[in-house]
Amino acid sequence: MTDISRIRAAAGRLEGKARRTPLLNSQFLDEIAGRRVFVKPECLQHTGSFKFRGGWSAVSVLNEAVRARGVIAFSSGNHAQGVALAAKMHGVPAVIVMPSDAPKMKIDNTRAYGAEVVLYDRAGEDRDAIGERLAGERGLTLIRPFDEPEVIAGQGTVGLEIAAQAAELGVAPGEVLVPCGGGGLTSGIALALAADAPGFTVRTCEPEGFDDAARSLEAGEIRANRPGASSICDAIVTPQPGRLTFPVMKELCGAGIAVPDADVRRAMALAFTRLKIVVEPGGAVALAAALFHGDTISGGDVVVVASGGNVDPELFASVLA
Amino acid sequence: MTDISRIRAAAGRLEGKARRTPLLNSQFLDEIAGRRVFVKPECLQHTGSFKFRGGWSAVSVLNEAVRARGVIAFSSGNHAQGVALAAKMHGVPAVIVMPSDAPKMKIDNTRAYGAEVVLYDRAGEDRDAIGERLAGERGLTLIRPFDEPEVIAGQGTVGLEIAAQAAELGVAPGEVLVPCGGGGLTSGIALALAADAPGFTVRTCEPEGFDDAARSLEAGEIRANRPGASSICDAIVTPQPGRLTFPVMKELCGAGIAVPDADVRRAMALAFTRLKIVVEPGGAVALAAALFHGDTISGGDVVVVASGGNVDPELFASVLA
Repeated sequence: MTDISRIRAAAGRLEGKARRTPLLNSQFLDEIAGRRVFVKPECLQHTGSFKFRGGWSAVSVLNEAVRARGVIAFSSGNHAQGVALAAKMHGVPAVIVMPSDAPKMKIDNTRAYGAEVVLYDRAGEDRDAIGERLAGERGLTLIRPFDEPEVIAGQGTVGLEIAAQAAELGVAPGEVLVPCGGGGLTSGIALALAADAPGFTVRTCEPEGFDDAARSLEAGEIRANRPGASSICDAIVTPQPGRLTFPVMKELCGAGIAVPDADVRRAMALAFTRLKIVVEPGGAVALAAALFHGDTISGGDVVVVASGGNVDPELFASVLA
Repeated sequence: MTDISRIRAAAGRLEGKARRTPLLNSQFLDEIAGRRVFVKPECLQHTGSFKFRGGWSAVSVLNEAVRARGVIAFSSGNHAQGVALAAKMHGVPAVIVMPSDAPKMKIDNTRAYGAEVVLYDRAGEDRDAIGERLAGERGLTLIRPFDEPEVIAGQGTVGLEIAAQAAELGVAPGEVLVPCGGGGLTSGIALALAADAPGFTVRTCEPEGFDDAARSLEAGEIRANRPGASSICDAIVTPQPGRLTFPVMKELCGAGIAVPDADVRRAMALAFTRLKIVVEPGGAVALAAALFHGDTISGGDVVVVASGGNVDPELFASVLA
């Protein structure tokens, strides 16, 4: 499994490849939240989300002969782009299995990063089965979006940076709010902070109706989302926490937070106005929690991960209206 | 006047106060431009523009007793916010003289940074005269937006960072495109690069109809804009280059580039899509030049300054449409 030494090794491989995103703040956001808010804008990462870190970590660690046969991933979009670019930079083929209703920009970008895109029907087909079949047929290495130790290690480098930057900026130890889909980013950051900044506690943030992590943490065992919900947060509507990620989350994270889409939209607009960054809905749930659900948060300062920025212009314009 | 030692001294005072903005890039922008494009996103700077650097530089260098009486500035908006926040962080009063037709967000933000805002009519009143009268009456120190050596030194720190980051990222020496109003940012960067990265040449970028810098550089002496033009680039529609800035520009800069507003809008949309940053019209002229006027640019790689992000949501939404 992933541990701090694996995260540090991933950080070494990512050196000079991933961007060290800054830690942003604004007095205007502080006033709304009633505390100091520091935002880690992974929307500024290559491919527009933190997923490049995990993708690069997993591709770069492969044996050269194995890597040369190519990699495969299944993803609602951001993991797809992260793996595709990592493969391209290594000069190896990538096949990406994506839901046919993923945002058009994410599909287009994945192709533009040189990957072969295989679309599937989110309602009627099992993406895991499709991915594993293709992997077997072509000798591709499957890179899972979160239940993969090297992917978790790559995402954990966000946590190493938060620990270092919080120390540089004098952030008081408190809570670190993380948008949570399958839990790769959450568990990676939690492991990194446990080692480098143990005064900080990670909290999962999810859209209402997709609070599987919050409910699983409360139950102490994995719970799946109930069917029928909908959310604009396409990047993090994962059915349930991962088998590898959940035990880490259970050990290290505080209670989960769920926020309505309306608050996500307001958070996106404030990130535009006050930080000048573009955050996609799934990337803005943690900022929404910090700004509008501060009563559920402990500690003085709060750190928020803005995990991605791959949002269609039409939706973003509607958020600004 | 400003020289490299003054810029380095400003950098020392700005250490831990201004953000060291990253240098961003995207393969998609490279493909449009036909060369590698590196973007310095000063929209991510405190107050949403590079102007915080000059404001902090000028306020921090004052004798403590002088500073305590307060500062005054006149500005279309971004310099206002930069000086206001710098004054607030020093705990001293700031009076800002702004045109009554400045974007509402810039006026509101300047007030929110604790400054007293005095509005004037851009068409019928002389902002310099108003500023100097108020300064005299209240013992305030006037901080000019560009014709002020310590302001130029502060803006020049952008150039020091570009030189260092270009070396880190292996950027081939070429042209550095800078949005140009009065020339404070342009001349500061040109001085910094002449010292630290002499292979790079600064080019001024302006909206069509407000190409006073380009025309002045061509003529070899200061030329003012002709009346009657209009542009969405409110931050850089300055009447003419400064008396202090122009001699530096004349000595160090290449020919100026003017771009139509339509290209500025396209550049803003691409900065949204590809870099996940919010750039205001005046901040996007250099990116527009790099993407759509590459035939006027020499060298392999190009560095672009995205100088600010203070744009009203309505205008930004119209750019995305």
